[in-house]
Amino acid sequence: MSQLRRDPITGRWIIVNITDPKKPGEFDLRPQVRKGGVCPFCTGNEKMTPPEIEAVRAKGTKSDTPGWSVRVVPNKFPALTIEGDLDKRGIGVYDMSNGVGAHEVIIETPDHEKDMADLSPREIRNIIFKYRSRSLDLEKDPRFKYILIFKNHGESAGASLEHAHSQIVALPIVPKRVTEELKGANNYFGYRERCVFCDMIAQEQQDKLRVISENRYFIAFCPFVPRFAFETWIVPKTHNQDFKSIDDKRAGAMAAILKDTLERLKKVLNDPPYNFIIHTAPVRDGLNEEYHWHLEIMPKLTNVAGFEWGSGFYINPTSPELAAKYLRAA
Amino acid sequence: MSQLRRDPITGRWIIVNITDPKKPGEFDLRPQVRKGGVCPFCTGNEKMTPPEIEAVRAKGTKSDTPGWSVRVVPNKFPALTIEGDLDKRGIGVYDMSNGVGAHEVIIETPDHEKDMADLSPREIRNIIFKYRSRSLDLEKDPRFKYILIFKNHGESAGASLEHAHSQIVALPIVPKRVTEELKGANNYFGYRERCVFCDMIAQEQQDKLRVISENRYFIAFCPFVPRFAFETWIVPKTHNQDFKSIDDKRAGAMAAILKDTLERLKKVLNDPPYNFIIHTAPVRDGLNEEYHWHLEIMPKLTNVAGFEWGSGFYINPTSPELAAKYLRAA
Repeated sequence: MSQLRRDPITGRWIIVNITDPKKPGEFDLRPQVRKGGVCPFCTGNEKMTPPEIEAVRAKGTKSDTPGWSVRVVPNKFPALTIEGDLDKRGIGVYDMSNGVGAHEVIIETPDHEKDMADLSPREIRNIIFKYRSRSLDLEKDPRFKYILIFKNHGESAGASLEHAHSQIVALPIVPKRVTEELKGANNYFGYRERCVFCDMIAQEQQDKLRVISENRYFIAFCPFVPRFAFETWIVPKTHNQDFKSIDDKRAGAMAAILKDTLERLKKVLNDPPYNFIIHTAPVRDGLNEEYHWHLEIMPKLTNVAGFEWGSGFYINPTSPELAAKYLRAA
Repeated sequence: MSQLRRDPITGRWIIVNITDPKKPGEFDLRPQVRKGGVCPFCTGNEKMTPPEIEAVRAKGTKSDTPGWSVRVVPNKFPALTIEGDLDKRGIGVYDMSNGVGAHEVIIETPDHEKDMADLSPREIRNIIFKYRSRSLDLEKDPRFKYILIFKNHGESAGASLEHAHSQIVALPIVPKRVTEELKGANNYFGYRERCVFCDMIAQEQQDKLRVISENRYFIAFCPFVPRFAFETWIVPKTHNQDFKSIDDKRAGAMAAILKDTLERLKKVLNDPPYNFIIHTAPVRDGLNEEYHWHLEIMPKLTNVAGFEWGSGFYINPTSPELAAKYLRAA
């Protein structure tokens, strides 16, 4: 069981493990499953995970048996749990609530040796379909305010298992970083009556300095203000606040440009650790029409240190113009 | 030369290296000086650093020669440089300016084998005196809006040299994280007519669950909402917005509690990597009387991953109540 706690100064929330805490000596920055170990995400080991929620399966194969190509299961060690009410309450100057939410894992392939970059566009499209169907299902629960989809690749990006997987977390609170972005997009719109992301796309297409690739529906570029070296965004060209409304055709185009971008990063940076995050509007929210959903890929090539933690400034040793040049050439 | 760039959506700033960028293949998460290598911070190697700005020295010894116990030098690879004007300008939807600022290193001891935790309270007090005198000197430059003092210890906390040192950065912009805290403290004050930090001290002293130690002028506790396992704050008991106004007596008390806290962390967590940051009000700023300066120590025992980057939520595997129990017992 976990607890949600809110910082009385900045309004930042944390999730703290109350019932099964980590003690000194139990911290380990290395991944938990090494090459050659038994992997709970491999085909044949389906019983090692909680029962599957959804899967893309060969006809006639049963749940929790081989025959799948994408598989969604509850996280065995969830940050938040599905039972109970939020039950917000104060303790003196502090605020807290129960750690209510959902935490699921999307196993992207039965093959332990493959990264997302190695999968076919069709296989990646199936993963995107699962992001969409799980979002649509989870948002039916009125307790959930935000659905966060992300992927950790490589140990220094925080992946605890090396088998390719993404995660989906349903949160009872709209996170601060999302609120900041919504507010920023809203302010820009209020001032210029245009979407800041649509304006960025137009400027990137004109400048050409930071664009990596384009297809009919998406553009991939290194943003002008990247926190991390070789940070890359994939942005839909049509204005839309909501990832989960993506249609099949656009999901195919997203899979194609995502594969292309991940392949370029893998080639140029020798399979770097990275995180990617789908930035989208909160659920059941008609108020954020100025927002524009997109995916941000953040390679983890340097350590975040005291300067970044203290300031929120990021020091980036590689300009996005140079990064894009390398990625375009790959 | 570096450039400052402002994100048009969230207002986040970055510092990007323009003239001497890192290229693919040049990224290395390991520290640059290994045990046994030649260390530019060791006594005898004073010529390997830029000329010293200040030092605590034995009488009769000359600048940039042995005989010092604390030494302040410009950073050889500064994130920001002292020459030039800020020169803010727009490029289409984007904003940028020159990377004007100062970046100095405080070498905490001539002895390569010692951590700050191993120094005497008197030696640590001398380091705090340097934090103070450099803050007072740098704030005379009207281009600087904020003085950030921090320390990275251990490679996964971002220390690029293992010899004990802290850093001081003068910034031409008040950083976002600082503004957030100032605004939070101000909002709380507006509502309750009390300082949120003073209220936290009172509650911690009453609850006793998260307190590690106290002396006449300072209290050390694990905050109720820690981002990281074993995060510890050192807060002055008297309300004051401004670190650099610390008097000699209080600097001595701060050194004593800082040494005690770092020793406890070292013992309980087997010399963990950590960052510490002095949170203080902007320079030449009489407006933030609701703020309360303090020092935050953040051990780096887990990797920050996609969930944290995407949400600004932190998952903490160890409650502050449990962490404080271990640290008190050490």
